[in-house]
Amino acid sequence: MANPSPGYSITLRVQAPASVSSTAELAAAVGRVGAAVTALDVVESRPDALIVDVTCNTTNADHGTQVQDALAALADVSVLHTSDRTFLMHLGGKLEIVPKVPLRNRDDLSRAYTPGVARVCLAIAERPEDARNLTVKRNTIAVVTDGSAVLGLGNIGPAAALPVMEGKAALFKQFADVDAWPVCLDTQDTDEIVKIVKAIAPVYGGVNLEDIAAPRCFEIEARLREELDIPVFHDDQHGTAIVTLAALQNALRVVGKQLADVRIVVSGVGAAGSAIIQLLKAEGAQHIVAAGRSGVIHAGEQYTDEHRRWLAANTNAAGVTGTLSDALAGADVFIGVSAPNVIGEAEVRSMAEGAIVFAMANPDPEIDPVLAARHAAVVATGRSDFPNQINNVLAFPGFFRGLLDAHAVEITPAMLVAAADAIAKRVSDDELHASYIIPSVFDPLVAGDVAAAVAAAAQAGSPADAPADVSADDLERSAA
Amino acid sequence: MANPSPGYSITLRVQAPASVSSTAELAAAVGRVGAAVTALDVVESRPDALIVDVTCNTTNADHGTQVQDALAALADVSVLHTSDRTFLMHLGGKLEIVPKVPLRNRDDLSRAYTPGVARVCLAIAERPEDARNLTVKRNTIAVVTDGSAVLGLGNIGPAAALPVMEGKAALFKQFADVDAWPVCLDTQDTDEIVKIVKAIAPVYGGVNLEDIAAPRCFEIEARLREELDIPVFHDDQHGTAIVTLAALQNALRVVGKQLADVRIVVSGVGAAGSAIIQLLKAEGAQHIVAAGRSGVIHAGEQYTDEHRRWLAANTNAAGVTGTLSDALAGADVFIGVSAPNVIGEAEVRSMAEGAIVFAMANPDPEIDPVLAARHAAVVATGRSDFPNQINNVLAFPGFFRGLLDAHAVEITPAMLVAAADAIAKRVSDDELHASYIIPSVFDPLVAGDVAAAVAAAAQAGSPADAPADVSADDLERSAA
Repeated sequence: MANPSPGYSITLRVQAPASVSSTAELAAAVGRVGAAVTALDVVESRPDALIVDVTCNTTNADHGTQVQDALAALADVSVLHTSDRTFLMHLGGKLEIVPKVPLRNRDDLSRAYTPGVARVCLAIAERPEDARNLTVKRNTIAVVTDGSAVLGLGNIGPAAALPVMEGKAALFKQFADVDAWPVCLDTQDTDEIVKIVKAIAPVYGGVNLEDIAAPRCFEIEARLREELDIPVFHDDQHGTAIVTLAALQNALRVVGKQLADVRIVVSGVGAAGSAIIQLLKAEGAQHIVAAGRSGVIHAGEQYTDEHRRWLAANTNAAGVTGTLSDALAGADVFIGVSAPNVIGEAEVRSMAEGAIVFAMANPDPEIDPVLAARHAAVVATGRSDFPNQINNVLAFPGFFRGLLDAHAVEITPAMLVAAADAIAKRVSDDELHASYIIPSVFDPLVAGDVAAAVAAAAQAGSPADAPADVSADDLERSAA
Repeated sequence: MANPSPGYSITLRVQAPASVSSTAELAAAVGRVGAAVTALDVVESRPDALIVDVTCNTTNADHGTQVQDALAALADVSVLHTSDRTFLMHLGGKLEIVPKVPLRNRDDLSRAYTPGVARVCLAIAERPEDARNLTVKRNTIAVVTDGSAVLGLGNIGPAAALPVMEGKAALFKQFADVDAWPVCLDTQDTDEIVKIVKAIAPVYGGVNLEDIAAPRCFEIEARLREELDIPVFHDDQHGTAIVTLAALQNALRVVGKQLADVRIVVSGVGAAGSAIIQLLKAEGAQHIVAAGRSGVIHAGEQYTDEHRRWLAANTNAAGVTGTLSDALAGADVFIGVSAPNVIGEAEVRSMAEGAIVFAMANPDPEIDPVLAARHAAVVATGRSDFPNQINNVLAFPGFFRGLLDAHAVEITPAMLVAAADAIAKRVSDDELHASYIIPSVFDPLVAGDVAAAVAAAAQAGSPADAPADVSADDLERSAA
């Protein structure tokens, strides 16, 4: 199912015969093994040979090796060197820290540093709240991970997680002018992480928790929310819940159903699944069934972990039991935040008329979206190479922009809903159709709309103004 | 003694009579109270009045109020608004975090973020040392403080310390293209600080400890050096010692004396004083006497703290006792890293012919340099408004540039000496004189020279190659 991707783009420097048909033969060889040529550049033309840079998208590292072998197998062709554009892009890291103020001469220095800076320090010592105006705290957030659940790669540790956190920080800046700094912690102890984030907090106006394994992530988030005076966002929960709600609102418009009426099955009871369920409930969804690895969560079972206990008490009022497949029969909505290929065509066929399938496991969805589309009315994934990409980047940059602009000290369910509404509204009635339920991540207006909506929700009120059914908070407190 | 400084520059918007002599009268009023006008701008000229922006350097906040009062006291003059250029410069902080890679389209995104980034993560998971090439670790250091000894302001806490750390980070970037990030910790517990810095270390290629109170700073540094695989620099010690050694080498050239022969008195046995003494000893100084608040440190006394015990054992072989004044009689060199006005003209007069006085307490030196110059051959301070400013900014940017370039894992005394030599050599024989013993902080070649010297020293060798008398390490170990 994987398509060649620019994320696996390689450039092979090849020596080939000095023939007019050489480059065509190189391209054909690359095509035969399924890679996509994106550029062919003759870098040197000698009487006896051509030196050609062949750039192509592949599907993974092994595929790159196949391409290399295919070229080397051609008569009189040798591969001199293979370079990887993704690795080249990462050399030296993806962020730099740049002064916003000039330091050209002694006068500049005496204002930005000693002696002038002493007055600014004293002003903050006297009125700590001035740190929000006079320091980077005004516009800077920490992207915090322990490297325990990075992308689909698992527990790869803090150093290996850093390229993801740098990428995230780059997105924050690019999409919403939020300065974000990676904090990759060399500990996976909950108490330690809480202590450390509290200790580093003076520099930041917000915390974005990222790729921390469940259930540790819940406790960390809950305790930090309790103890810090800056907002704590857990992208795997809140970001995913926001974009899922936005996409679901529009998908329901496409099929003409109401959130309160539909039967929703969520596959995956980790950070994302739990947060999605909480937000959907806060928005009025009545019929939600959650399924984990061992089947449907229901009130008849005793669960040892806090999360499943909460789900058993707060979902599945109908008392459905059995497998994920059992639950899907007749359901209106499937939301997958679990694992590749957990359902097949038969399960989608068993769903109600006008079925909605969000298969968001990455990079390989819960079901091949091509198969799902044979039976479902609306299909969405987390992937950019299919329509309807449900991507957190629609949410987190604008969300933090709004938090920082409003000097928010906490995150409320009302803000999450406001962000989802703002994203959903970027698709107008005219534009809305089954293959366009969510705006592009490159829609330049999304972040600003989300920021304005979040800031308005922050200013509108305290948590008391949030929807009555604020289950997110209940859960977080119970996990603490 | 304080002069008006651009660090205390204010702009007053004033309404004055519509007279040709108005601006001259405003300037005269500012001058009468001792402030220095740097700009006079008529922003609006009405038939009945002028609106004028008066910008002037003052000596401190109270002085700013005096200027305001002096202007308001003029006939028909009113002060509409006073703005402070230093505070304006600090609005929103002094740093931003900027992507080094383009994120214009889906291809960019798929290389810098998912899915492409996953391969980079896996590469680092397999070969952790690749983090130095593929992440910000290659060029980024942490500027770590607990806010306990900030400038001359004392224990003002982490939030109030942030403007200084931002300024420091800006200097790192400006002078040596080192990315530096402020880490202001909301704890002053040694064990906590060590734990936290270790936990955040995966992102950084070096640590610069800053403005942490003694003696805690020594233990923190020693333990981090022991436990981290990236270099740990303590600017208050190492930075100050480097620039002091550089300045002293050149001052000795001016007066024609040798380091091994001169009698040196160091006032101040905190972080800076101890480090200076260690480095001077490493370079061959034989006759050093240290004095703290309670007088000269000598072997006849029992000291409770590790530091004074080390100093008693390793300085003052002649067994001098008494006060700082007693020790200065006949001394060749005074190095002050202590407190304002601890010596007077009489003490300098009592020193040997060709006396060298480094009065580096900031902002107010151990003695008014004008008084000191009546009797000393060479006088230096930490201030920019006198000749011979001994400023750490000459050392730390280039020092870390060299460490990062060499992928250094620790700091050796040989590197400190190499950095001092590089700084001293920026003053040529032709240029050298009593008022020019150390290059300007804006000398564009200093940082590069220091970096090259440090990188060469790092490559030259392990700590075994360092001078035999490596007292710095001894001390640090004993404090651990």
